[in-house]
Amino acid sequence: MNYKVICNYLGRILLLESATMLPSLIMAIFHDTTRDLVSFIISIALSAAVGAALCFIPKPKSTSIYSREGCVTVALSWIVISAFGAVPFVISGAIPSFIDAFFETVSGFTTTGATVISNVEAQAMSVLYWRSFTHWLGGMGVLVFLLAIVPAAHGNGMPLQLMRAESPGPVAGKLAPRLHLTARILYSIYIALTAIQILILILGGMPVFDAVTASYSTAGTGGFAIKNDSFASYSPYCQTVMAIFMLLFGVNFNIYFLIIMGEFVRVWKDSELRTYIIIVASSVIAVAVNAWKFFGDFGQSLHHAFFQVASIITTTGGTTLDYEAWPEFSHEVLIILMFVGACAGSTGGGVKISRLVIMWKSFCCEIKKLLHPHSVSVIKMDGDVVDRGTVSRCGAFFFCYILLVCASTLIVSVDNFSFETNFSAVMACLNNVGPGFGMAGPVETYASFSWLSKIVLSLDMLLGRLGIFPVLVLFVPSAWNPRK
Amino acid sequence: MNYKVICNYLGRILLLESATMLPSLIMAIFHDTTRDLVSFIISIALSAAVGAALCFIPKPKSTSIYSREGCVTVALSWIVISAFGAVPFVISGAIPSFIDAFFETVSGFTTTGATVISNVEAQAMSVLYWRSFTHWLGGMGVLVFLLAIVPAAHGNGMPLQLMRAESPGPVAGKLAPRLHLTARILYSIYIALTAIQILILILGGMPVFDAVTASYSTAGTGGFAIKNDSFASYSPYCQTVMAIFMLLFGVNFNIYFLIIMGEFVRVWKDSELRTYIIIVASSVIAVAVNAWKFFGDFGQSLHHAFFQVASIITTTGGTTLDYEAWPEFSHEVLIILMFVGACAGSTGGGVKISRLVIMWKSFCCEIKKLLHPHSVSVIKMDGDVVDRGTVSRCGAFFFCYILLVCASTLIVSVDNFSFETNFSAVMACLNNVGPGFGMAGPVETYASFSWLSKIVLSLDMLLGRLGIFPVLVLFVPSAWNPRK
Repeated sequence: MNYKVICNYLGRILLLESATMLPSLIMAIFHDTTRDLVSFIISIALSAAVGAALCFIPKPKSTSIYSREGCVTVALSWIVISAFGAVPFVISGAIPSFIDAFFETVSGFTTTGATVISNVEAQAMSVLYWRSFTHWLGGMGVLVFLLAIVPAAHGNGMPLQLMRAESPGPVAGKLAPRLHLTARILYSIYIALTAIQILILILGGMPVFDAVTASYSTAGTGGFAIKNDSFASYSPYCQTVMAIFMLLFGVNFNIYFLIIMGEFVRVWKDSELRTYIIIVASSVIAVAVNAWKFFGDFGQSLHHAFFQVASIITTTGGTTLDYEAWPEFSHEVLIILMFVGACAGSTGGGVKISRLVIMWKSFCCEIKKLLHPHSVSVIKMDGDVVDRGTVSRCGAFFFCYILLVCASTLIVSVDNFSFETNFSAVMACLNNVGPGFGMAGPVETYASFSWLSKIVLSLDMLLGRLGIFPVLVLFVPSAWNPRK
Repeated sequence: MNYKVICNYLGRILLLESATMLPSLIMAIFHDTTRDLVSFIISIALSAAVGAALCFIPKPKSTSIYSREGCVTVALSWIVISAFGAVPFVISGAIPSFIDAFFETVSGFTTTGATVISNVEAQAMSVLYWRSFTHWLGGMGVLVFLLAIVPAAHGNGMPLQLMRAESPGPVAGKLAPRLHLTARILYSIYIALTAIQILILILGGMPVFDAVTASYSTAGTGGFAIKNDSFASYSPYCQTVMAIFMLLFGVNFNIYFLIIMGEFVRVWKDSELRTYIIIVASSVIAVAVNAWKFFGDFGQSLHHAFFQVASIITTTGGTTLDYEAWPEFSHEVLIILMFVGACAGSTGGGVKISRLVIMWKSFCCEIKKLLHPHSVSVIKMDGDVVDRGTVSRCGAFFFCYILLVCASTLIVSVDNFSFETNFSAVMACLNNVGPGFGMAGPVETYASFSWLSKIVLSLDMLLGRLGIFPVLVLFVPSAWNPRK
């Protein structure tokens, strides 16, 4: 294990984090109390000092980097930025308990949107800005951001491992021959889409601060809102715009690159995109019809069904109303969508549609083998053969995912809430959705859960965001062997 | 597709079924009303007539048999025996609706134990005997029974495919060089164990009829009881005996064969058996400690925890009390045990421990590959290499299992019961457990579900009992192509 390289990256990421807190600091100067201002000064100084100290560790002689260094760096980076990112919440008094603040920050960076703050409107502007900004930063990946702005220090080995470990989905896309170019392209698309959304929302009459934070929240498919009723008080126009952008951010970013390159045929034939559109459309219709009676008006039902389906499948989690009052069938559709998630290579969470497509094809393959035992069958996706390694990794991912759901639900159940609460809280955190049902429902917060449950749920959010494996590597003793 | 061979097997299985109804007929003569007697006469005549008609179809010229003939025969046999087995319930008036009676019979043969009868004690003896006997017959497999008593008509090809499709677990065991010998060995062990249990229960003071039906119910790990309070009214001695026998019937029958052969070292080293014992022991302790406060007395808590854990992990589903009153943590342990299930090659249901062990090893393999990308790793179980085909079949099984849970829960949710009810009803049926939670809980019946839910849950029971794939083959159009 190349510890020096890992420390170096952790140092850089902390320096980056202190820089990203500067807008909040400026906001605190003009709008908030001295305590808020001090909290950001201390937080920035702390991140910068620890970051600089880590960067001062002499560069390693050996620059050989393997996949485990990539995994460990990514997993540790996310834990470290969440710990340091929680400091402003604690010092400003917004969230006095560190475990609660850590939960909130993990929820921010992993774009989950699960919150422990019951009265969001009472919070300082600077704190709310920082809270929403963590979504935007976490959406496309903090290490991808680092790669986009700082040239790689150790050749292409480490960046490749980092991209692999941080990118969501079974296969990491490679848009450009050099990795920092790929990172720049991804972030350029991301910034452009976010800017367009802010503009459209402001044109729709939304206040600038609301438009910016709501766009961060939807761009990262996070879900934090700056109102106590989430997104319910905005106009239907703004809600529809947000729902459309959630869906856009749930698309694999490679698709946008292909559009820019003019390769429309490949976009049209992309099986993940097609499946995504079919699932969204059928879910919207199913929920709208099922909730029709509840609204009494099909137009209203369709509007809210569209927003809620977009919000849950992209694992954003913002709400326009208390969907718990809907009939049970709609609940179940939403719970299944939590698990489905968005496309690979998007800012959304969940199992990811491409993984499900691969698993479905592998399942069809088994049925075919049962019927014709001597036939040779390969799994193809968009014309390319999916190698056996990817398929078996998907299978192992899936198994581990179920194991995590079981284990987490078991630990959370010690709090003695209902099964629906426990199960949906775990699903909402592991899939980076945010709100679930029952005590974790859209009109509740996670504040009532015990510290043990909050730690388990925080871990679930990290596992979900980083595709399970990189975080699990931290718990494998042989990964820490310095000799290997 | 060799239709003639399939018809021939369906005919034999119906003749067998009419024979297995004879004990109920005799019971009806001495104990029950004329209506009950007539219902069994008609049922026996109907099964025998249709069975004989099917057997009269001339033997096929081609005796070539493939895996799909095996799958289709097994799946159709189970549907046909359930449909004909439901007739006595309908005619005797015990369950007037055919869909309800079909649900009850599927639940019987698949050893699920989910019931629609709220007042069991009001039923005729002959009907109760038939109901419990379906558990015993379904536990080890009706086609295995056929193979054990009738010499194979078409060489070893068809029996092999039948054993494969009907035996629970990822790999079908082969105890003897000839398959009908294997079937005879399995049934001999099964009969011997059942007889021992009946004897021990009678020695413990249980009435003979109760002892026989309870033993059928536990031997098949089914769960039907002849009392309204399930097994609550029996003495703690009898309850403990039943729990121990449930666990014994949840063990792979190969283990008993190895014991008879004196191969104790192989038994001792069997990884599935070890995992089974560890899971049972740790679950009993966890539930006993968690429910301690509820009982006030640890001895009581341990007794009921042992019974309930044994009942759920072996997917029997009999109860000694309303476990819904226990704390939430215990609920969650029981729900997870539903899913775990018993050992492969036992009469229990669920995903099966050996599948989980294979998936766990495959998952560890992926983590190892991530850490050491160039290492070559194989999955071993009890010293033997598990071939890639078995691993990928397990992965596909697992994926399809989750898909079935999602789809079934979605359809059942149209009834608008709670999430816990819907989810646990599906889990209880797909894993052949029987009672779940909420409206499907231990003090409720499935009578309140709609006919659509009952059909879906019946299908889930069949899918669960037959290892998903054989039933799914029925829905693949290419399987029905007569040319291939």
